[in-house]
Amino acid sequence: MDENFLLQTKTAQELYHGHAERLPIIDYHCHLDPRMVAEDYRFRSITELWLGGDHYKWRALRANGVDERFITGDASDWEKFEKWAETVPYTLRNPLYHWTHLELKTAFGIDRLLNPRTAREIYEECNEKLRRPEYSARGLMRRYHVETVCTTDDPADSLEYHEATRKSGFEIKVLPTWRPDKAMAVEDPEAFRAYVGRIEQAAGMTVSSCSDFIQALERRHDFFAGQGCRLSDHGLSEFYDADYTDAQIKDIFNKVYGGKCLSAEECVRFKSAMLVEFARMDAEKGWVQQFHYGTLRNTNSRMMRLLGPDTGFDSIGEFNTASELARFLDRLDSRGILPKTILYNLNPAANEMVATMTGNFQDGSVPGKMQFGSGWWFNDQKDGMERQLNALSLLGLLSRFVGMLTDSRSFLSYPRHEYFRRTLCNLLGRDVENGEMPEAEMPRICQMVEDICYYNAKHYFEF
Amino acid sequence: MDENFLLQTKTAQELYHGHAERLPIIDYHCHLDPRMVAEDYRFRSITELWLGGDHYKWRALRANGVDERFITGDASDWEKFEKWAETVPYTLRNPLYHWTHLELKTAFGIDRLLNPRTAREIYEECNEKLRRPEYSARGLMRRYHVETVCTTDDPADSLEYHEATRKSGFEIKVLPTWRPDKAMAVEDPEAFRAYVGRIEQAAGMTVSSCSDFIQALERRHDFFAGQGCRLSDHGLSEFYDADYTDAQIKDIFNKVYGGKCLSAEECVRFKSAMLVEFARMDAEKGWVQQFHYGTLRNTNSRMMRLLGPDTGFDSIGEFNTASELARFLDRLDSRGILPKTILYNLNPAANEMVATMTGNFQDGSVPGKMQFGSGWWFNDQKDGMERQLNALSLLGLLSRFVGMLTDSRSFLSYPRHEYFRRTLCNLLGRDVENGEMPEAEMPRICQMVEDICYYNAKHYFEF
Amino acid sequence: MDENFLLQTKTAQELYHGHAERLPIIDYHCHLDPRMVAEDYRFRSITELWLGGDHYKWRALRANGVDERFITGDASDWEKFEKWAETVPYTLRNPLYHWTHLELKTAFGIDRLLNPRTAREIYEECNEKLRRPEYSARGLMRRYHVETVCTTDDPADSLEYHEATRKSGFEIKVLPTWRPDKAMAVEDPEAFRAYVGRIEQAAGMTVSSCSDFIQALERRHDFFAGQGCRLSDHGLSEFYDADYTDAQIKDIFNKVYGGKCLSAEECVRFKSAMLVEFARMDAEKGWVQQFHYGTLRNTNSRMMRLLGPDTGFDSIGEFNTASELARFLDRLDSRGILPKTILYNLNPAANEMVATMTGNFQDGSVPGKMQFGSGWWFNDQKDGMERQLNALSLLGLLSRFVGMLTDSRSFLSYPRHEYFRRTLCNLLGRDVENGEMPEAEMPRICQMVEDICYYNAKHYFEF
Repeated sequence: MDENFLLQTKTAQELYHGHAERLPIIDYHCHLDPRMVAEDYRFRSITELWLGGDHYKWRALRANGVDERFITGDASDWEKFEKWAETVPYTLRNPLYHWTHLELKTAFGIDRLLNPRTAREIYEECNEKLRRPEYSARGLMRRYHVETVCTTDDPADSLEYHEATRKSGFEIKVLPTWRPDKAMAVEDPEAFRAYVGRIEQAAGMTVSSCSDFIQALERRHDFFAGQGCRLSDHGLSEFYDADYTDAQIKDIFNKVYGGKCLSAEECVRFKSAMLVEFARMDAEKGWVQQFHYGTLRNTNSRMMRLLGPDTGFDSIGEFNTASELARFLDRLDSRGILPKTILYNLNPAANEMVATMTGNFQDGSVPGKMQFGSGWWFNDQKDGMERQLNALSLLGLLSRFVGMLTDSRSFLSYPRHEYFRRTLCNLLGRDVENGEMPEAEMPRICQMVEDICYYNAKHYFEF
Repeated sequence: MDENFLLQTKTAQELYHGHAERLPIIDYHCHLDPRMVAEDYRFRSITELWLGGDHYKWRALRANGVDERFITGDASDWEKFEKWAETVPYTLRNPLYHWTHLELKTAFGIDRLLNPRTAREIYEECNEKLRRPEYSARGLMRRYHVETVCTTDDPADSLEYHEATRKSGFEIKVLPTWRPDKAMAVEDPEAFRAYVGRIEQAAGMTVSSCSDFIQALERRHDFFAGQGCRLSDHGLSEFYDADYTDAQIKDIFNKVYGGKCLSAEECVRFKSAMLVEFARMDAEKGWVQQFHYGTLRNTNSRMMRLLGPDTGFDSIGEFNTASELARFLDRLDSRGILPKTILYNLNPAANEMVATMTGNFQDGSVPGKMQFGSGWWFNDQKDGMERQLNALSLLGLLSRFVGMLTDSRSFLSYPRHEYFRRTLCNLLGRDVENGEMPEAEMPRICQMVEDICYYNAKHYFEF
Repeated sequence: MDENFLLQTKTAQELYHGHAERLPIIDYHCHLDPRMVAEDYRFRSITELWLGGDHYKWRALRANGVDERFITGDASDWEKFEKWAETVPYTLRNPLYHWTHLELKTAFGIDRLLNPRTAREIYEECNEKLRRPEYSARGLMRRYHVETVCTTDDPADSLEYHEATRKSGFEIKVLPTWRPDKAMAVEDPEAFRAYVGRIEQAAGMTVSSCSDFIQALERRHDFFAGQGCRLSDHGLSEFYDADYTDAQIKDIFNKVYGGKCLSAEECVRFKSAMLVEFARMDAEKGWVQQFHYGTLRNTNSRMMRLLGPDTGFDSIGEFNTASELARFLDRLDSRGILPKTILYNLNPAANEMVATMTGNFQDGSVPGKMQFGSGWWFNDQKDGMERQLNALSLLGLLSRFVGMLTDSRSFLSYPRHEYFRRTLCNLLGRDVENGEMPEAEMPRICQMVEDICYYNAKHYFEF
């Protein structure tokens, strides 16, 4: 993995080293803990930093036959690291193998391969470095030339850590993202009622009806805007486009708030209405709405009881959402409240559908208004990125793509931007050398690389 | 884009230049306006010829942030062309980039790249050439060595322009295709009743029952046959295989003809019955039936109201049709009325399903009786063509493939045959040079190229 | 197709010739007839051996326009062979072209290309060799260094031929596989009742209730275990995860056993219950359960009446099974009865879903407990294998893969292991030479090749 890693042609190397490599990072969607930035967190060990919450690695460990004690259990930091070092050689051809070594190299300057023989010395070298001030949370962000980061936050969140970070004069922008999933989670009346309570408190008003609830959410939306928020995000399995009347939504709210279970139909109706409200708020403020859809979550109930959600038991679903998605977007467009939108599909079999769907609602107002998002989650690897880039290229305008994001909880995930940039430059370089893009277009192609790596996001999100 | 564009190996170059390049074009499915051929239409400008009805380009313009005024609005020809020229550099990696330059080169002999700097001179050079007689509708067809063209026509159509063209002695065959979509469009009773009226008039008989209707359609089918028609075509989202009785169909016809709305179930039943009738007619005459399926049409209701259908707001649907498709084909096969058939799927995720489905109904009567059609619409680009060619190769017999068609409204789309031929030769050349196909088979491989580019279609359609 | 066929890099060649080539074959899933092994069957002709039951070839013949008489009809052995020889050149790019020539070469030492000119001499040379003792059923298995073979057997089967083979001292293990599809086939009450009778007889006990039936099946399961069985197998279109109570299953059994037709819901409920029972039995004995799912079978009713099932009229279905599959596996896991499991999907569009699904139920007890099975049926070709290998690599641990199986009825299918091994080595070699896997990992990569080709299966199945 030398300087030309993944860059198989001369042109690819020129594009990367001459145009992509040194641009700052706009990480417009991630799951960093804002408190760790505010407090400039110091990591106890490479185990905490690397293995503490990374369910990609946990899945690999389980697949490799490692006992849960060494994954999420009470084994020591060293024991857990050792198991990971034993597993790494078995991850060849999995992106974890590349991530692992890219992270060791770019963060710690270590270019030895991690395996049982090198485990101890790498463990100690990393831990020694983590004790240095430049390896704090903020130090790691600086190391990777991060310019802006958007975290993922609940509307009820105080955003106190974002505020503290800003006031501290930290030169990297750490902005919140509006993620109101819980405001639509009406399947569980008790949890929903509790959530309404949190919103009441955050908004400083009493909620006794659905319109109160929406008003309270809108106050929070305003508050987020005041904190520099420019994006919303929604995690969905499928899209919701049910017909409804205001009276129905009012009744559904009262029913669930009153503690009664809703029918599946009522749930879908409520979500359909809320998605419209959220889009309207985003459109009014010129925000970008994001949809991460197609997941099958918490499939393993035994482990869900033991470890809770987001612990490595989610996978790719098979949902046919094209018709619902089209009707949902049309509903927004025909009411004049379709914000800039990014669609991320989890099942790569839907890439072509999504790429063509965005074309239906491009309205000429903003270049690339409707975006097909970068390869997400399981697709966030070379093949997945290439498939997304190719589908977008063939069925839309690659030139207008807003590019990469980490979607990560880790302060060590920024090399994924490097990985993406190398993959992008490699595709373009190959096309030039194949004669599929003319040499005479090199200035345009260089600009395209810079745009996708940095400038498009900068203009699109208007931070 | 020189003479070896897309031809990455020596063998590919030999196959293309020695076997594919000079064969005439059989464009067995397109949407050319037969009147323009009959009247040997002269184009006002490159804008009219290129941008007048090409919703692929319109989608790219919208995605690039261009205002609708410059796309379908009242901007001048030059203004529209200028916007397109500004957009072309942003289409790099999209097939439009290749189509654009191939069309400029093959039709106008222009091999400069189109962009804002070259826009004016290219605009004027094209317009100057379009004033020459050899740039008429027929002139363009001659330029590309077109041998036969099949348009797409409603059963009620008089086919007067086909007749006029034939009588004029035009050396290129321009044949009609039977596309009876409206004869199944029973969702809208009023429009359906009006359509029945058109069929009555065209068939010269009164229709007062479903059997009259079918008889009238059959007269039209006979008339189309008399005009040289050899193919039918159906545009569907999904396949229809509902059970029905003749009595039910009779009642459904009476109900909708009487102005009453049908239930969804009745609609499907009626369509199921009509597809069988149409297949029977085709089978009796030895025609080929085509199915273009899997579209999500008119997704943008605002633009539908402004511009109508086929203006760039359709996309790839997600329908699971395998079971229905199998039962539909089985219904025809078991009644002995399964015609030669071509299946075109819009969602490339279904390629493997379709390729294996055709194998279930190959009956040994005709080589390649059941065809998996060439990459359609959004798939009509290098990657889409390759995916179709590969799926067909691996799961069927590529050697028996009837090859490329433009499916286009434009007299400038014939370079797509060149593009397809280059792509085909490139795949085969690569396999030979990789050792996946033995050199000793070169005579067979050369013949395969010629067959797929020309002879298979010639024998299959029996024009 | 020389010694480096499919091996495009030096590293690929080293991996194959140095590590994969000479390993024995564990063919852990096939459809060989155990009687032919027990009796050491001698083949009448290459036609019988090659064309007697190979519906892949039959499909190609039909697609090539060959009359059924020469496929499954009363034509002579020579006539059928001649038709195949005529068709072979038309199969270029289809795996049949490669299989055909690999089989001729490895079994008969013939490296001429099969076509009408060579047909007669190849026919005679093969037939001459088939008369030699080393070309018997067992001789062919020895020729390919087969170590273990698992056939596919009904629970009611006496396994007498497995026993006879074992007692004969044949050095290759021929083990049964438990395939209880008929014990769930409650759609046809009459056939089901007859089947219950067969189980009664085989188990030596009277069945008059559902619990009797399960007990009788369990006796057979024990008997299979005694015969060395280590795997079960299930052929499904979709997965079944309906809720049910014991009382409901009891009633459903009584209803169908009493000759009454079940509702679709009752069928699904019964199958849901039986899948749990079978998994429990497998888990208790440490067996591996296999699921081959996603087929659309017997689509051509005319040919079904003429030729019966498994004659070339099956294809890839489009079923969305992710949610059901997740709930089914979770049901087993949460009851502590999830055996080692291999999932084979027929539709390659589901590859990514399946690869991620296995990760949800890896529990750290066994490396690679949950397996994404090798490209199955229509996917058992270079592209299909590569897609499976890539999806598994990117979303799981390729290193833990149990590798290839023939799934074949033919004693000539073992070259598919060679084909797979070449394809695997080619992928890995390319990655090394591209710099995507470091040279320094070569020892691990060599071990990975050996593991996937042989050792992983050896350890996983514990024959």
